[in-house]
Amino acid sequence: MNFEQAWNTFRTMHDKLHAISHALGVVQYDAATVAPRGSAEGRGKTMGIISEMSYSIQTAPEVNEAVAYLLENKDQLTPAQLREVSEFNKSNEFVSSIPMQEYVDYTVLINEAEDVWHRAKQENDFASFLPYLQQIFDTNRRFALYYKPDNKPYDTMLDMYEKGLTMEQADQFFSDLRSHIVPLLNKCMQAPQVRDDFLSRHADIATQRTFSDYLMEAITIDRRYCGIGETEHPFTTNFNKKDVRITTHYHEDALVSSMYSVIHEGGHALYELHSGDEYEGTFLSGGVSMGIHESQSRFFENIIGRSRQFTTLIFPKCQELFPDVLGDVTAEEFYRAVNKVEPSLIRTEADELTYAIHVMIRYEIEKAVIAGEMQVADIPQEWNRKYKEYLGVDVPDDTHGCLQDSHWSGGSIGYFPSYALGSAYGAQMLAKMKESIPVEDCVAEGNLTPITDWLEEHVWRHGCMYDPGELLERAVGAPFDPSYFVRYLEDKFGEIYGV
Amino acid sequence: MNFEQAWNTFRTMHDKLHAISHALGVVQYDAATVAPRGSAEGRGKTMGIISEMSYSIQTAPEVNEAVAYLLENKDQLTPAQLREVSEFNKSNEFVSSIPMQEYVDYTVLINEAEDVWHRAKQENDFASFLPYLQQIFDTNRRFALYYKPDNKPYDTMLDMYEKGLTMEQADQFFSDLRSHIVPLLNKCMQAPQVRDDFLSRHADIATQRTFSDYLMEAITIDRRYCGIGETEHPFTTNFNKKDVRITTHYHEDALVSSMYSVIHEGGHALYELHSGDEYEGTFLSGGVSMGIHESQSRFFENIIGRSRQFTTLIFPKCQELFPDVLGDVTAEEFYRAVNKVEPSLIRTEADELTYAIHVMIRYEIEKAVIAGEMQVADIPQEWNRKYKEYLGVDVPDDTHGCLQDSHWSGGSIGYFPSYALGSAYGAQMLAKMKESIPVEDCVAEGNLTPITDWLEEHVWRHGCMYDPGELLERAVGAPFDPSYFVRYLEDKFGEIYGV
Repeated sequence: MNFEQAWNTFRTMHDKLHAISHALGVVQYDAATVAPRGSAEGRGKTMGIISEMSYSIQTAPEVNEAVAYLLENKDQLTPAQLREVSEFNKSNEFVSSIPMQEYVDYTVLINEAEDVWHRAKQENDFASFLPYLQQIFDTNRRFALYYKPDNKPYDTMLDMYEKGLTMEQADQFFSDLRSHIVPLLNKCMQAPQVRDDFLSRHADIATQRTFSDYLMEAITIDRRYCGIGETEHPFTTNFNKKDVRITTHYHEDALVSSMYSVIHEGGHALYELHSGDEYEGTFLSGGVSMGIHESQSRFFENIIGRSRQFTTLIFPKCQELFPDVLGDVTAEEFYRAVNKVEPSLIRTEADELTYAIHVMIRYEIEKAVIAGEMQVADIPQEWNRKYKEYLGVDVPDDTHGCLQDSHWSGGSIGYFPSYALGSAYGAQMLAKMKESIPVEDCVAEGNLTPITDWLEEHVWRHGCMYDPGELLERAVGAPFDPSYFVRYLEDKFGEIYGV
Repeated sequence: MNFEQAWNTFRTMHDKLHAISHALGVVQYDAATVAPRGSAEGRGKTMGIISEMSYSIQTAPEVNEAVAYLLENKDQLTPAQLREVSEFNKSNEFVSSIPMQEYVDYTVLINEAEDVWHRAKQENDFASFLPYLQQIFDTNRRFALYYKPDNKPYDTMLDMYEKGLTMEQADQFFSDLRSHIVPLLNKCMQAPQVRDDFLSRHADIATQRTFSDYLMEAITIDRRYCGIGETEHPFTTNFNKKDVRITTHYHEDALVSSMYSVIHEGGHALYELHSGDEYEGTFLSGGVSMGIHESQSRFFENIIGRSRQFTTLIFPKCQELFPDVLGDVTAEEFYRAVNKVEPSLIRTEADELTYAIHVMIRYEIEKAVIAGEMQVADIPQEWNRKYKEYLGVDVPDDTHGCLQDSHWSGGSIGYFPSYALGSAYGAQMLAKMKESIPVEDCVAEGNLTPITDWLEEHVWRHGCMYDPGELLERAVGAPFDPSYFVRYLEDKFGEIYGV
């Protein structure tokens, strides 16, 4: 084997895996958006067979040999090539550690589980989802132990979503956050309350669809490369940097629900759409971690989207489209309403302040189940107990409780902490950005370009070239520091609530 | 090699090809329905790579050996197994005759061509589509010659869509049809005209979507397994018998356009949804030929859907949903309006009588281009000339002329005659069905079960077990006879127009 042969083997393997992942990604997107309800069985078979092909391509002996050769001849690789081969090698060590049949069975399980979860959520039927959830937790724990037998399994899972993250760090992070958020929350709750009754007025869904298009444009998304679908649970997926899809869910009585899910998913989309051209068609294309991804989505949703400047900017359009909802409301009332602080049931609709508590509850449950300290069957009661304890709310049913999120049915365990980390990363980026850009003024003028240029330069274009910690440090010139997020929250809600 | 090994190799190869075809099918469906406009390039690469995998699986030496072994040991195969192996062998001879790179390039070409056609149709820009159309005609001619070097290429193409069909037969069929249709058409045009002005009144698209769901139910489609999408050009695709998709196109000023496209595609869907369980997961699953497929779609669209009994049955619902369109119209006026005979521009919206002429024009153009007697660049002027000559209409632009159909951009050359054949097959099936079933009474009562049972028994459940000619003969107890179709037209339009 020579260098060229090894590199060609590696490249061809990438292209095949990427093609398969593209096709399977479309199959999953179709399943979540428009596929007929009864079609899961045939799709499961297809996904099983194609996963098997993917596994065989990735773990083929000639690929292993090529990777070994390339890693032994590092000096012939550019930094990007070296990064690509090393990163692939890690993911390959994970995949190769799993027996093929278990890998395939898991793909089939996830396809079925998403279908069962969807119905279970609609029908408040945790029992029907329980056997799937049990298998998903068990399989994830088993896979983590195959991969790193000496690690605590949940540490391995956290590391897969946010490289370097451990339970020790996450415990510290959440405990810090909680110690600041809870007193601030209490102060807000005791202050005069913000009016938001008008947000539940009837908003026509066809008009909400038009509004989504407007919002996508407002946050600079090039629609030639980004579609909007409709699903139970909003998400973003991408097949390459010129084919990104976001989804949302419209509610007639909750205009801002789809509004902020579109802006949130739009933030994810921007990150993928602006991945560096030099990484396209390589393993380094696209977002590097879920934490950095959530930093972008939550940056657009909250730091931009829930700012006084942005809500004021788009308010005339909102009034024009929804006169029955906002005709008798001022821009300032609208701003305050979308920032109302209130302990609530649904994570995706939570305010910025209580949001981290929602995430923390999920984190604690995952950690306890994976450690064997909580049974999967006990999740509903533990969920409800924690919502009462941390947020003071009574969970009426599992639909509004532990069945609300799609992550577990999709096999994502260890993902949730990324949301809270992302919020904190975003606040730190904002602080850095403000050193050179008048962020508020730009948003007020509807000129997001300096902001998106900054993000493209410091985050988006780098794809997976750097680990998340390094990427953040290069962007802000300092290590991760959650105190920026705490200060951001204290400033923003202190002003709104006068506390 | 023993029998079991050979059969396992064959079965595994089928399963892989089916999985790939399922995934690629979803990718294409997504492309036609919801994919962002700028996403064609990445999709093309993926489709190229996956087609290559598919080609390699199908033409692998061990598959050839297994097929040869099985065909040498026919006596160990059940009739269905023998049929499956023989049919696969034929399609494999076709695929194997094409050099792999050309096969892959063609997949990529088609992906691009569909995108270009879509824009060309919207912008009335034949010139931009011409180079693609040229390549599609050229490639199809070349592939036909690779496969059967001694055949006339267009005969080979016709045979691929409708086994056994030749230009000689098609010429005869169209000439017979024309000799009856043209005089009848002339008589209808001279009779007092039918009123249909109300059909272009404004019909809300959201309500048309609701109407589509109603129509699907009216023709007995099980929606758990059949979705409706929206595309420029309506079509049906299926991934297995529990996952069928139809599409339609809504026009605010043409309610019956989507109405009959839904019923037409619904007929295709019924055929796929009711393929025999014993053939599921084999090469014999699903519709056997485009002619038989069109016989089912056009049976539902016209013989059922445009019958006085059906239009009367659904008329109250139509009035309820579209009071502004049909409030001042009677059921009889509605029936006559949807059967108005009028030479027109658009095939999919043509009446039953002139429809075959639209098909004939396409057939004659394809035949001439493949024979080298017409240039692809001359298609627009030839198209317009024939529309004037045969139907007396002036084609205002290519959007309403040779760019109207999606077939050529999808690589389907030789497909069109299936539509006219299908209409004729359907009329012959109707005559046979009426010997045992009071078809009109059943439709009038809204009880389609005896009709769908007959079709399931004689057509749908047989999948690809018999060649189309044999299937028809088994169903009606006689060889194909187009005179049933002529009589059906003469009876129906003679009554409506009193001629």
